[in-house]
Amino acid sequence: MDFRVLHTDGNARTGRLALARGTLSTPVFMPVGTMGAVKAISPHELLDVGAEIILCNTYHMYLRPGQETVAEAGGLHKFINWDRPILTDSGGFQVYSLSPLRKISEDGVTFRSHIDGSAHFIGPRESMEIQRALGSDIVMAFDECTPYPSTYDYTLKSLELTTRWAEICLKNVEKPQTLFAIVQGGVFKDLRLQSARQLKDMNFDGYAVGGVSVGEPKEIMHEIIGYMAAELPSDKPRYLMGVGFPEDILAAVEAGFDMFDCVIPTRTARHGTLLTTHGRIIIGNSRFRRDHTPLDSDCGCYTCLNFTRSYLNHLYKAGEILGIRLNTIHNLYFYLDLMKKIRAAIEQDRFSSFKMDWLSAYQ
Amino acid sequence: MDFRVLHTDGNARTGRLALARGTLSTPVFMPVGTMGAVKAISPHELLDVGAEIILCNTYHMYLRPGQETVAEAGGLHKFINWDRPILTDSGGFQVYSLSPLRKISEDGVTFRSHIDGSAHFIGPRESMEIQRALGSDIVMAFDECTPYPSTYDYTLKSLELTTRWAEICLKNVEKPQTLFAIVQGGVFKDLRLQSARQLKDMNFDGYAVGGVSVGEPKEIMHEIIGYMAAELPSDKPRYLMGVGFPEDILAAVEAGFDMFDCVIPTRTARHGTLLTTHGRIIIGNSRFRRDHTPLDSDCGCYTCLNFTRSYLNHLYKAGEILGIRLNTIHNLYFYLDLMKKIRAAIEQDRFSSFKMDWLSAYQ
Repeated sequence: MDFRVLHTDGNARTGRLALARGTLSTPVFMPVGTMGAVKAISPHELLDVGAEIILCNTYHMYLRPGQETVAEAGGLHKFINWDRPILTDSGGFQVYSLSPLRKISEDGVTFRSHIDGSAHFIGPRESMEIQRALGSDIVMAFDECTPYPSTYDYTLKSLELTTRWAEICLKNVEKPQTLFAIVQGGVFKDLRLQSARQLKDMNFDGYAVGGVSVGEPKEIMHEIIGYMAAELPSDKPRYLMGVGFPEDILAAVEAGFDMFDCVIPTRTARHGTLLTTHGRIIIGNSRFRRDHTPLDSDCGCYTCLNFTRSYLNHLYKAGEILGIRLNTIHNLYFYLDLMKKIRAAIEQDRFSSFKMDWLSAYQ
Repeated sequence: MDFRVLHTDGNARTGRLALARGTLSTPVFMPVGTMGAVKAISPHELLDVGAEIILCNTYHMYLRPGQETVAEAGGLHKFINWDRPILTDSGGFQVYSLSPLRKISEDGVTFRSHIDGSAHFIGPRESMEIQRALGSDIVMAFDECTPYPSTYDYTLKSLELTTRWAEICLKNVEKPQTLFAIVQGGVFKDLRLQSARQLKDMNFDGYAVGGVSVGEPKEIMHEIIGYMAAELPSDKPRYLMGVGFPEDILAAVEAGFDMFDCVIPTRTARHGTLLTTHGRIIIGNSRFRRDHTPLDSDCGCYTCLNFTRSYLNHLYKAGEILGIRLNTIHNLYFYLDLMKKIRAAIEQDRFSSFKMDWLSAYQ
């Protein structure tokens, strides 16, 4: 891995993150392919919308089809037929958010599968092993994603465990995989800084901020975004996990973050919420029934070039899979196009005015 | 419309059906796009799998989004972004199969929408009007699709009504739309022949056999297929409606039919049943979990060229839309490729041996 900051504009920055399977232009958005498929989209459509890297979930791939099956297939890239970079999370977040029963010990987490109730154990060693079998390009350290709300004491103990686990991950990662650490610390600034400091001392390839967008009020999230980036090494990629809406990403870029992932564009698309430069559209709304114009006439995506709002409205109401597909293509294109515009604005030292203009058009 | 028989091999024949929007090679299979979308598939993927014409359902488009909306959009082709030929059925079949309440009179059928229970009326005039607003290339005469089982007396009265309606349709069709009549007569050979005779006398552009594959035993359907084609004009396209499995299509081609439509390839795909030259595959079966070979190594479709059985098994079990899409692409390609092989075999006067070989490999 090689990361270079190319240009800064305030705290916002563009960069190049070179990985064996491809070079990413940062700030970058990573579509989420939870179970080895970005929902409703083919790998070729992902290329068409401009995706440079996708995220897959270790927890899901571990449970089904299992990392042995993926390894047998030649790794995740071959299994899903995507030859550009893949980032896998550590499994930590899903173990907490999806598993009906879990028990944390010093070595890891015992939990039950949300699919069939079977018992499993994943700790930092296991997470590194699974991610190695998957063969992802960027692997994440196994962490406890502290829930919201948590007490100060619990959050402190939890981040210290995450730090000890991070150390084990560092010892167990093997090249060419690139390991990122995850800063925890909940809503407590001093704990966030403590977590960042401990992890910085271990010299990871990149740093992520986890445990945000887990139910805390939006102002608290933005407060964390605001002070967190500056606490992470400036010569390493900074990844804000699971965030967010376009306005959140703009704020985080402004603060100095480089990498993002979120299910919002794909999930909202499936429910008929479409993003345009002039704000959100609920495509099932009857005012679109006879609207024979493109969804967004400024957009260059397959959906906008080939179909009308009227047809998208019809597909939505009829429950057609094609509607979900076309919506997903549009929303992903919209996010990836936004990142392109963000990078251009930073390069041209006009990020702040770009952000203001963009947000006022989006109202 | 211009139809030419190009070559005959026994009763099987190849032909060219020239329509304003494209020329079809017969025997032809028409993928079904019930509500203005072939389920899970984009129009560009339809081209990729080799579709030359698709079928849309008048009943569904009438109820939602309504033919006025479609006409406003510039017709069905523009609405759904498919510029090759479209055949619309008359609405007759769905009025009987989907509507919870219906009352037949000399003028047509009063029925309730299966979507919202609202009251509607469609007769031969209305069907022609709706299909004209949709702007399809081939329109079907409004018929009563006699249910199975029906008495001889009911079937006789029903086919005579269908004949009178066909006459009204003939008076109300406008060029460039091409009108096909539908032969009814249930399971009674003399009534089938009577229906065919009456409709032949009116000189339609093409002739369809309806009211088969509506629940009757397979032997009865094959009996009807066996004697029916010869009773239809040899210089007009012969269309067997709603049939069927590959083995049914092979039998019908042998009898002299030229056109087919069926939801089997798309519907079974959504439920994980995939067709290969060596028979059907239930992709969710655990024996495919670690099978890292293509679904059908003889197949040239996008799915078989890019993905493995193991991945398709995973997508199916995970309930991923991409699985439904890849399955649908494969099954449609399989059907359209079968038609290509059928045409080649007829051209080379070896249809009978082709059929035998194909069926024995498919067991």
